[in-house]
Amino acid sequence: MPLTPLPEIMIELLVRNALAEDLGRAGDITTDAIIPVRQKWKGALVARQGGIVAGLDLARLAFRLIDSAIIFSAKKSDGDVLKPKDIIATIQGPARGIITAERVALNFLCHLSGIATATHNLVKAVKPHKARLCCTRKTTPGLRLIEKYAVRAGGGSNHRFGLDDAVLIKDNHIAAAGSVRDAVLRARASVGHLVKVELEVDTLDQLQEALDLPDNVSPDAVLLDNMPPAKLKKAVAMVKGRFTTEASGRVTLDTVKAIAASGVDVISVGWITHSAPILDIGLDEV
Amino acid sequence: MPLTPLPEIMIELLVRNALAEDLGRAGDITTDAIIPVRQKWKGALVARQGGIVAGLDLARLAFRLIDSAIIFSAKKSDGDVLKPKDIIATIQGPARGIITAERVALNFLCHLSGIATATHNLVKAVKPHKARLCCTRKTTPGLRLIEKYAVRAGGGSNHRFGLDDAVLIKDNHIAAAGSVRDAVLRARASVGHLVKVELEVDTLDQLQEALDLPDNVSPDAVLLDNMPPAKLKKAVAMVKGRFTTEASGRVTLDTVKAIAASGVDVISVGWITHSAPILDIGLDEV
Amino acid sequence: MPLTPLPEIMIELLVRNALAEDLGRAGDITTDAIIPVRQKWKGALVARQGGIVAGLDLARLAFRLIDSAIIFSAKKSDGDVLKPKDIIATIQGPARGIITAERVALNFLCHLSGIATATHNLVKAVKPHKARLCCTRKTTPGLRLIEKYAVRAGGGSNHRFGLDDAVLIKDNHIAAAGSVRDAVLRARASVGHLVKVELEVDTLDQLQEALDLPDNVSPDAVLLDNMPPAKLKKAVAMVKGRFTTEASGRVTLDTVKAIAASGVDVISVGWITHSAPILDIGLDEV
Amino acid sequence: MPLTPLPEIMIELLVRNALAEDLGRAGDITTDAIIPVRQKWKGALVARQGGIVAGLDLARLAFRLIDSAIIFSAKKSDGDVLKPKDIIATIQGPARGIITAERVALNFLCHLSGIATATHNLVKAVKPHKARLCCTRKTTPGLRLIEKYAVRAGGGSNHRFGLDDAVLIKDNHIAAAGSVRDAVLRARASVGHLVKVELEVDTLDQLQEALDLPDNVSPDAVLLDNMPPAKLKKAVAMVKGRFTTEASGRVTLDTVKAIAASGVDVISVGWITHSAPILDIGLDEV
Amino acid sequence: MPLTPLPEIMIELLVRNALAEDLGRAGDITTDAIIPVRQKWKGALVARQGGIVAGLDLARLAFRLIDSAIIFSAKKSDGDVLKPKDIIATIQGPARGIITAERVALNFLCHLSGIATATHNLVKAVKPHKARLCCTRKTTPGLRLIEKYAVRAGGGSNHRFGLDDAVLIKDNHIAAAGSVRDAVLRARASVGHLVKVELEVDTLDQLQEALDLPDNVSPDAVLLDNMPPAKLKKAVAMVKGRFTTEASGRVTLDTVKAIAASGVDVISVGWITHSAPILDIGLDEV
Amino acid sequence: MPLTPLPEIMIELLVRNALAEDLGRAGDITTDAIIPVRQKWKGALVARQGGIVAGLDLARLAFRLIDSAIIFSAKKSDGDVLKPKDIIATIQGPARGIITAERVALNFLCHLSGIATATHNLVKAVKPHKARLCCTRKTTPGLRLIEKYAVRAGGGSNHRFGLDDAVLIKDNHIAAAGSVRDAVLRARASVGHLVKVELEVDTLDQLQEALDLPDNVSPDAVLLDNMPPAKLKKAVAMVKGRFTTEASGRVTLDTVKAIAASGVDVISVGWITHSAPILDIGLDEV
Repeated sequence: MPLTPLPEIMIELLVRNALAEDLGRAGDITTDAIIPVRQKWKGALVARQGGIVAGLDLARLAFRLIDSAIIFSAKKSDGDVLKPKDIIATIQGPARGIITAERVALNFLCHLSGIATATHNLVKAVKPHKARLCCTRKTTPGLRLIEKYAVRAGGGSNHRFGLDDAVLIKDNHIAAAGSVRDAVLRARASVGHLVKVELEVDTLDQLQEALDLPDNVSPDAVLLDNMPPAKLKKAVAMVKGRFTTEASGRVTLDTVKAIAASGVDVISVGWITHSAPILDIGLDEV
Repeated sequence: MPLTPLPEIMIELLVRNALAEDLGRAGDITTDAIIPVRQKWKGALVARQGGIVAGLDLARLAFRLIDSAIIFSAKKSDGDVLKPKDIIATIQGPARGIITAERVALNFLCHLSGIATATHNLVKAVKPHKARLCCTRKTTPGLRLIEKYAVRAGGGSNHRFGLDDAVLIKDNHIAAAGSVRDAVLRARASVGHLVKVELEVDTLDQLQEALDLPDNVSPDAVLLDNMPPAKLKKAVAMVKGRFTTEASGRVTLDTVKAIAASGVDVISVGWITHSAPILDIGLDEV
Repeated sequence: MPLTPLPEIMIELLVRNALAEDLGRAGDITTDAIIPVRQKWKGALVARQGGIVAGLDLARLAFRLIDSAIIFSAKKSDGDVLKPKDIIATIQGPARGIITAERVALNFLCHLSGIATATHNLVKAVKPHKARLCCTRKTTPGLRLIEKYAVRAGGGSNHRFGLDDAVLIKDNHIAAAGSVRDAVLRARASVGHLVKVELEVDTLDQLQEALDLPDNVSPDAVLLDNMPPAKLKKAVAMVKGRFTTEASGRVTLDTVKAIAASGVDVISVGWITHSAPILDIGLDEV
Repeated sequence: MPLTPLPEIMIELLVRNALAEDLGRAGDITTDAIIPVRQKWKGALVARQGGIVAGLDLARLAFRLIDSAIIFSAKKSDGDVLKPKDIIATIQGPARGIITAERVALNFLCHLSGIATATHNLVKAVKPHKARLCCTRKTTPGLRLIEKYAVRAGGGSNHRFGLDDAVLIKDNHIAAAGSVRDAVLRARASVGHLVKVELEVDTLDQLQEALDLPDNVSPDAVLLDNMPPAKLKKAVAMVKGRFTTEASGRVTLDTVKAIAASGVDVISVGWITHSAPILDIGLDEV
Repeated sequence: MPLTPLPEIMIELLVRNALAEDLGRAGDITTDAIIPVRQKWKGALVARQGGIVAGLDLARLAFRLIDSAIIFSAKKSDGDVLKPKDIIATIQGPARGIITAERVALNFLCHLSGIATATHNLVKAVKPHKARLCCTRKTTPGLRLIEKYAVRAGGGSNHRFGLDDAVLIKDNHIAAAGSVRDAVLRARASVGHLVKVELEVDTLDQLQEALDLPDNVSPDAVLLDNMPPAKLKKAVAMVKGRFTTEASGRVTLDTVKAIAASGVDVISVGWITHSAPILDIGLDEV
Repeated sequence: MPLTPLPEIMIELLVRNALAEDLGRAGDITTDAIIPVRQKWKGALVARQGGIVAGLDLARLAFRLIDSAIIFSAKKSDGDVLKPKDIIATIQGPARGIITAERVALNFLCHLSGIATATHNLVKAVKPHKARLCCTRKTTPGLRLIEKYAVRAGGGSNHRFGLDDAVLIKDNHIAAAGSVRDAVLRARASVGHLVKVELEVDTLDQLQEALDLPDNVSPDAVLLDNMPPAKLKKAVAMVKGRFTTEASGRVTLDTVKAIAASGVDVISVGWITHSAPILDIGLDEV
């Protein structure tokens, strides 16, 4: 499936806030003091390392909001593979505006491309298997929607966007309800017909409890938490396709293949959003 | 110097936005469906790995804004060293509110503690030398003020907060001005008397140009960009204490000692804010 | 299932904006001119007609944000049945604040109680049948989250909260995809594993196309659009419980019983949010 | 008098908020998954029932803010009479954007046209008489300015926009002041010379109190609350044109003619803003 | 009439914005570096010159929003006369918070007290005459509501709060309408029954045109623009109390008595809001 | 140095808020009622007195945000000298929009030009001497960034923009630290290497304490508070160019020359931002 860009109305405020944060109360005092107002500049956003690009619309918007005379010509699209030295976009126009907006544009682009790249590396590793790679709610506060977008750019899939768009029953919920069964039943009774219910289980006994529920109230998915591949395999065998199966916990580039080989449908990973290093991208004069 | 907490008025909006992002349009539908409204819960924020804690006020605020009846008792202060299993804070009160606010509180706390820890590790490595460890403007969009705070919590120092609070003359500025001398003179003439001027130099020739300027207009600091330790040492010798010297580029835990040994005053590092992995902290029932 | 109140953080801005809209740039000039500052007042929110109450937290907040000395004592809870003359809450404290906040408090309370009441009337009519009564995205701009809450207060269930929390494939989508099958497949491939897919069908042929899809990609629900009860019954029989069935269109207090008798799981109604008259509630001195 | 459109700056935030509310954190996932990015679409906003249109600028803005390539050609103006099947506007351009913005555009248009239509029906009924039909402060929280605009579109007139733009003395104020006379005097003394003072009276005795005040301090208008037509007629006769007379309470399409025949200048009605059903308008492919 | 304080909800955002503007991205770095966190401080807001105080609630809020442990005890109320050295309020509590909030608190207090004082001086000068002293829309952008409040604190009265709460017909309007008569008739036909209409006239001929209008459509007030006292007197004689008369233009402490002596009802002055110097108030340790 | 305009992104919200404040909930009811929608108008912003213009971009934006069809042609640039009757800009286009936006545009332009003019008059008086004229943090709440810009337009220089961009040690800080020496050392230890430290001294003894500090920790600047010219001269002689010297207190057009003659580097003045009267500018039809 091709990647759909986020409507500008969904990202504009993030870019405005980032620019405001950088401009402060006096703007770019260095550039204003030194660069003549009519000077032109031409440059390119260049990958300093290989990876996946994401966030081009945010970068473009950073330049445009500083000076609408800046021409931003994308040579790549979000989700594209970058080799080192690849040109991502060319930028030309008033020198002042380009230099002033540079850091904010790069901060978005490098952060989101870092997430897309980390996601992509896991997705590639999983390739021979059917498992989809998926993010969590462990995102940078305030940036969830663009970080989840970057996960999609990297070929990943999205878990819940918040506490409100799906049910995820965890240990505290089960404890409060008294049993897996009661927790699931309470959830089903409470939410609308377009809300999925996922159940996190730590043991195969808990999984069996879920499987014992009648079809019309059973969970749509089970999250198999922190299970080693062999146990995951057993779980998948027990489920027999009745629920979507999701593996979570201790997923790294080293472990992900074995996890995928267990036959789970989804592998969710927190660190692709909370701990992915940036992808190094620079702005060079051309 | 002890770390000063940020006034609540400076962080409240960030926490409100993060909660709104997670609550969406229906709130925590899982918890609301399953956990009884009067149920109490008691837990602790526990370090899953060693490091430096930062962001306690943001975590506390996340719980309080969801339910003011939640009691958050900090056992550590921002900047404190954590060993694995250390209790950072205890939290007790209405179960629903605690579970609903948990992820947002942890997202702030783990992210900022990750930055503080990365900073601290570099600071320790530099210890025998006088160099201060310092961040850059390569921060997560919208979170600069709390990320710079986390750097301070880790024992680091802050570079510019934005484009407006100090002059930093880079290659494009020098090129536009025609010479180091003219770039510095234009900056001095333009900004107020409480604004420092730093000059980024790539070569020792450029550094000499700066040294040739009369004292009353010369830069306050020079950023020695991407120079190996030997060259840095030469630069420090040339400067003879007339300017603050700052080294930047390719700073890692491996290289930082040698860089510091060159005698520079400041070492600035982008990755402590843009690529530090989170510090793993969890909320456990107690 | 008991009704869960919305966290204050989700409704505070709505109440603040409504108060700001009413206070304008000079506040309550009538009350300020005439009522002495120390005068006390005691009154009650009284139902002028029977129905279901919803919005008490918004009303309470309106009074508190104007003057925290006002004591608001709820005698009913959201979702409770009201008979004419029932006291919903008593309010006492500074006369000025109570009179100033009255209209905003009532505007929220009457509007939301109107929605809850309209919902409840349909829910009651449907009672002997299993069908759940559900709202749509036809809500008042800006008030969706509280209007959907009012539907829950009235015993109804919620459909999608926005374009992003579930897939709903309509005629334009099917036309663009070329077939029901391709539309559903594209949706399944694109969205995460916690997103449900609903398909709107106008004919039983379209429904059959959906039934012909293999289980693992078939829609979770079908919206049977504008079908008379007899046709709905046929559709339900065809579906045999494989999908959730939803009836929509021309649902009134007169028609809803027959629709429910068709055996559908869900009946969705736009007018309970977009055209329900208010429930008349007044503030009387006591 | 021709209807004046609201400046875009006064409505833009309302439309942005409504779009944000509908797009959520992932946008229109159905359309993004199924409709090809280059597909065009052409349609028309069509009246499904007769009435008065209002809110075209808000609808236009909803489409434009989603995709500025969408061409919105209005065939009617706010305030125009619609017959069933009348085309209100044609819309063409990128299919995705049109389908994504459709619901928000319609939610504004149907809601405001409903208010305009309800107003217009009362205005027509009152026609042979001089009375102006007027709204109240019983409006949907946050939408007052556009609802009052819709009343004007329906041929109605506006009462106070808030607590601050005119004085309206009610029973609580009179009670606090001790007499009609003192209440009016306090108000006059307190407010600026461009603020009108209206007095609500329940009885003809109270009206007489007002008439006994000297001209230079007497109210500008009296609100005759809940009086039957015969009593209204008496009141109008007593006032002899000294004040504007306003009738309020129990105004329906059935009663409004008789009320108007009493000779009052203004008839105010709450339900045209708080309880008018929407006017049904749809978006059809053409 | 006693002065009514503005509800906190109307001023809170102004104070928050002013604090945010001053705290920037790092807070009060001087105080945080030097003042120990537990140090207490006690001081007083002291008048350095005589005048009228206004803005105490804004000052109080500035301290409270920085640290709710600060105790602010007002010794004066808004509108009170200050002699040099008068104590306006005492402030005690954590030294850091007091010193951090000081400048924002004083900026509000000195600015608003300056306006109140300028107003009061004119009001005193006018005393023997009936004329009320009144402000205009020439206010500092964003501060209109508190500046108009300060005018009331100084004993003045308020003109329009914006373009929307009363009609003021000026030369351009008359020119566009073709005549005074048509301009007034268009306005009357367009606006609601609680909106006053004022007409600005430059000549007595224009005034006569207004007087020739029948009572039920004539303006409520006339603004006699830039007329010398003798001409104002003639105008007042012509009007014979039919309209409120307002003088405007070239009003100073020297001219205001003569203007008032002409018998006008209202004298409006722009400079009390746009050009009043601050009242000097300081924060002294006690 | 030429004056650099503020990026539109830094001023847009200020202009939007000011327009919203003036338009209120109904817009310009006078103009809407009287001026035909197609009527054109042509006018000019004309100086009614001599001075320095500042704020043209804010005025232009006010017109454009009301109606983008309005053509604003600047004939002067910010910082230019105005003689009485000079045309600053011509404005043509739809009459309604121009008249509606006029007051907001003028409120910004007159206020900022007043500050620029006051600044310029002091700058001219100081001319023969080297001292730079500089503002303070005594600014109108919420307008600091544009008021500091106006100071630059008048030829002045800027002091701190907030509490966070430089250290300014005052008497309370010295008292808390116990000595000048300790206060300066604490500040130096706490802040980053691009933050300047200024010390306010009341006496020459305090100044000597600062001079006794070693070069690498001594303040960058000293603020000589409220010292008469002779004492300033002594202070300057003591400092011998080691620190920037700033004089503050009792600076008027009468005293500023003598202060400058003392040889100080900077003279800071609060009243140019907090008490400068507006520069009178009007909009005339042409």
